[in-house]
Amino acid sequence: MALVRFDVTGIGNAIVDVLSHADDGFLVENDIAKGGMTLIDAARAEALYQRMGPGIEVSGGSAGNTMAGIAALGGRGAYIGKVRNDLLGKVFAHDLRAAGVHFETRPAEEGPPTARCLILVTPDAQRSMNTFLGACVELGPEDIDAELIAASRVTYLEGYLWDPPRAKQAFVKAASLAHEAGREVALSLSDSFCVERHREEFLALVGSHIDILFANEHEVMALYRTADFAEALSAAQAHCKVAVLTRGAKGSVVAAGGVVHELAAEPLARLVDTTGAGDLFAAGFLHGYTQDRPLPACGRIGAIAAAEVISHFGARPEADLAELVRGSGLD
Amino acid sequence: MALVRFDVTGIGNAIVDVLSHADDGFLVENDIAKGGMTLIDAARAEALYQRMGPGIEVSGGSAGNTMAGIAALGGRGAYIGKVRNDLLGKVFAHDLRAAGVHFETRPAEEGPPTARCLILVTPDAQRSMNTFLGACVELGPEDIDAELIAASRVTYLEGYLWDPPRAKQAFVKAASLAHEAGREVALSLSDSFCVERHREEFLALVGSHIDILFANEHEVMALYRTADFAEALSAAQAHCKVAVLTRGAKGSVVAAGGVVHELAAEPLARLVDTTGAGDLFAAGFLHGYTQDRPLPACGRIGAIAAAEVISHFGARPEADLAELVRGSGLD
Repeated sequence: MALVRFDVTGIGNAIVDVLSHADDGFLVENDIAKGGMTLIDAARAEALYQRMGPGIEVSGGSAGNTMAGIAALGGRGAYIGKVRNDLLGKVFAHDLRAAGVHFETRPAEEGPPTARCLILVTPDAQRSMNTFLGACVELGPEDIDAELIAASRVTYLEGYLWDPPRAKQAFVKAASLAHEAGREVALSLSDSFCVERHREEFLALVGSHIDILFANEHEVMALYRTADFAEALSAAQAHCKVAVLTRGAKGSVVAAGGVVHELAAEPLARLVDTTGAGDLFAAGFLHGYTQDRPLPACGRIGAIAAAEVISHFGARPEADLAELVRGSGLD
Repeated sequence: MALVRFDVTGIGNAIVDVLSHADDGFLVENDIAKGGMTLIDAARAEALYQRMGPGIEVSGGSAGNTMAGIAALGGRGAYIGKVRNDLLGKVFAHDLRAAGVHFETRPAEEGPPTARCLILVTPDAQRSMNTFLGACVELGPEDIDAELIAASRVTYLEGYLWDPPRAKQAFVKAASLAHEAGREVALSLSDSFCVERHREEFLALVGSHIDILFANEHEVMALYRTADFAEALSAAQAHCKVAVLTRGAKGSVVAAGGVVHELAAEPLARLVDTTGAGDLFAAGFLHGYTQDRPLPACGRIGAIAAAEVISHFGARPEADLAELVRGSGLD
């Protein structure tokens, strides 16, 4: 078996976020699905950018945020994702590497520009995302570094990868390589609209390739077509080794080996912007998991990391997460 | 006299900020002057960016921040500054226009890229700035829109404009046009290193062209070469109609017509990043001034706007400043 060099390798859409405040009226006028992630083309991205308020640019992408979280917790993370060789691509690569994440995917030299996500944050701190996938459509199986996957305890895949057409081949290749190397594979369902778009493929995938499933309650109920959370939980338990289901302010549920742990959310000092909450919960959980902590402790670290990221604008951690965990009384 | 269409027109270096956390050791290792603004060339900008941590990109520039503040307070603002026609230039223009500021300066079609400022924020919330001026060196007198200046109650100039060589001609042209139209001219001294670089020219300028002088205590003492704040205050009073001197947590002093008002700082909920404190103080003061409020009220609005901007990362207001002023009991 290859030497473990990374705790987690994340694979995802490499995106720079443009965050702005907006009121609910703006979402209605511009036909934006509140709380969701909508795919948009270049023309719509340009038109929406012209109409939205002043922005801040921060590197994002669901799995990218998770890997930045792993690094901020003191873990060893790597990332695979496709940018274009342009200014935003350089910003994305800089931010991930500067966070301490290994990132060597070759940037595209031609084709669409680096992906961006126009995020409107409403006064209730909810975020509504509009993603122009740009260079992400260039990610394919040739970008999966077999040696890297074999050297990672967990390979973590974001469900959003199912949107760009060739990425799903990369996705399946990475999952297969990980299992051949005796490693584990985790998947985040990402978004309930994304689940609706790809339900049959996700169901097949969860049954065949996924050891650890991350989802919020809406996503897992969408996957199993039920309005009953308990029913969705049972289905997920039957389907994969570990199910990690988040429920916002209601906390989370971690189920494995027939045991269900119900965990409280962390107390919040401030709620500013929910962008990245799920991504950072996954980071905290996976950090604990790859440190062989008990599952309730993994969930608690996830909750601590999620609470930090929603206390400020942007989906990457600003505080020293390792320090927050040390101060939490977990050790 | 031309119709007043704008309360304030700001002229400055059009810059996108790249903000990152750093510890004091990083400043020492990289020879960065703590709390100051240092000019750097393209090679140094690239090298420093490679070494610094993950960043967030936010439109900045001292006078640009001030104009965004004027707009957030409900005032009518315009801006003159030079970007390149590139991605960061488009971001800068978008953010200013989306904030409600009139901005029509023609972007440069060739030459250096849009300016950027690498800002390291230390744990004490102090910011240390490293500016690559880029396209700002292209600003010249041909960019001064005489009709716009004549239609603005106050023309506001940042002292940083003295760094790019041709901008000072633009600066003097704008001040002359404003006075010919019966308007007022305000200057911010910007930075004590900047004052050291241009002291003699600033002294001549303040004596001949400036009605309202903004400075912090370090800058005004640097200008008049004294270690005694009271002496600097006297000199500034003799030199210009209104002197607005900020002293950080000690509050501010507003002197005009032989009367000196000492004003307290606003109580702070959180101190995160002092970037933009002086810019937003000037915005609040000028907003009150152009609404014909008494000078102590102008200073109070300045303090409210400054307190908001230092409570979060970045130099542009995030909260509704007009609402904060309404809630302050000033009316």
